[in-house]
Amino acid sequence: MRPAFDLSLYLVLDPVQCGGHAASLGVARAAIEGGATVVQLRAPEWHKRAWLALARDLLPITRAAGVPLVIDDHVDIALACGADGVHVGQRDLPADVARRLMGPDALIGLSVSCAAEVDEANGLIDLVDYLGAGPVFATPTKTDASAPCGIDGLAALCAQSRYPTVAIGGIQLHNAVDVLRARPAGVAVVSAICRAADPRDAAARLRESITLKP
Amino acid sequence: MRPAFDLSLYLVLDPVQCGGHAASLGVARAAIEGGATVVQLRAPEWHKRAWLALARDLLPITRAAGVPLVIDDHVDIALACGADGVHVGQRDLPADVARRLMGPDALIGLSVSCAAEVDEANGLIDLVDYLGAGPVFATPTKTDASAPCGIDGLAALCAQSRYPTVAIGGIQLHNAVDVLRARPAGVAVVSAICRAADPRDAAARLRESITLKP
Repeated sequence: MRPAFDLSLYLVLDPVQCGGHAASLGVARAAIEGGATVVQLRAPEWHKRAWLALARDLLPITRAAGVPLVIDDHVDIALACGADGVHVGQRDLPADVARRLMGPDALIGLSVSCAAEVDEANGLIDLVDYLGAGPVFATPTKTDASAPCGIDGLAALCAQSRYPTVAIGGIQLHNAVDVLRARPAGVAVVSAICRAADPRDAAARLRESITLKP
Repeated sequence: MRPAFDLSLYLVLDPVQCGGHAASLGVARAAIEGGATVVQLRAPEWHKRAWLALARDLLPITRAAGVPLVIDDHVDIALACGADGVHVGQRDLPADVARRLMGPDALIGLSVSCAAEVDEANGLIDLVDYLGAGPVFATPTKTDASAPCGIDGLAALCAQSRYPTVAIGGIQLHNAVDVLRARPAGVAVVSAICRAADPRDAAARLRESITLKP
């Protein structure tokens, strides 16, 4: 039985943007205090030994707060540290493989960027728990991302999805409210928290802005 | 119980050097016909979905020949396709984690480049099956590799190791015999087979040269 989860404010924790291992722990703690509801670890520039060390240090923080820790892409790291789930993209291991390796209780997210990918995801019965849709806006964080779908495009993906869907890509404090027009289950941010001078305040202001739904 | 394995001619199959998925299958088949005794899949530029597809297509070829297929770095891909083992480096998942995830029957290799790493590996009782030592010579294949250890350095690592140890890094047909002076259990090659005009002939000539021990 998968635990309930809340996608409202989904932090993609990039340890390079945070400033390293120790800084990432501080950002995660502060973001959760500010209202982050999910933490995904994503460190494409890092080797796996460093991912694993950070994931192991993050788990006591996320567990104490009842916030799921999800590992981007690497199912082996998630298994090694006992993370709550994995997030896979269209070129990562397929969702059915991730589910088989992670077991029935893990949280599994899947990135989608177009109607065809949502359509395929809608057919993956009991494999996927949520979708990440985007990029909504252009973003320097993921240089290999698809073309931005914009808010109207996001709205179409959210309406089509039979899963709770979190919006991602270029979302900052100034545009988070606009994104809500597309009716996602939440917003995912990277630099808006990882690069913030005060990550707790950044998370709290994001959380407040997305709670004042239009 | 781990199956017996023969490190004599260890092919590191790089699908980019081979020319893609289909070409890699041809290279693997030809190399095994020529005498390759282990195939490791290593595709650092590739996403995991492409790794998995290639690994699944390689397994019938390696299985039919009784040659182990080992996956570089990614334990999750090895688990997903049922590969015979994984090869981990010093910055990948630790060998104890790889062993726990892969189970007692998997072949686990570990890269070492200095005496301290061999010393640590020698302490990993029942976790590791073989070491990969090098780079012996400078190589453009792995841009993040350590400084070359040379043949004398390799000899010291092989003598110190309590595991069968395969030499790697810049090994080509013209220098493979020299490498044997260090008394490794075998030689690993990448471009010497993957970029060969005739991979079967390249493997056969390498195999012949290393069988004529000095």
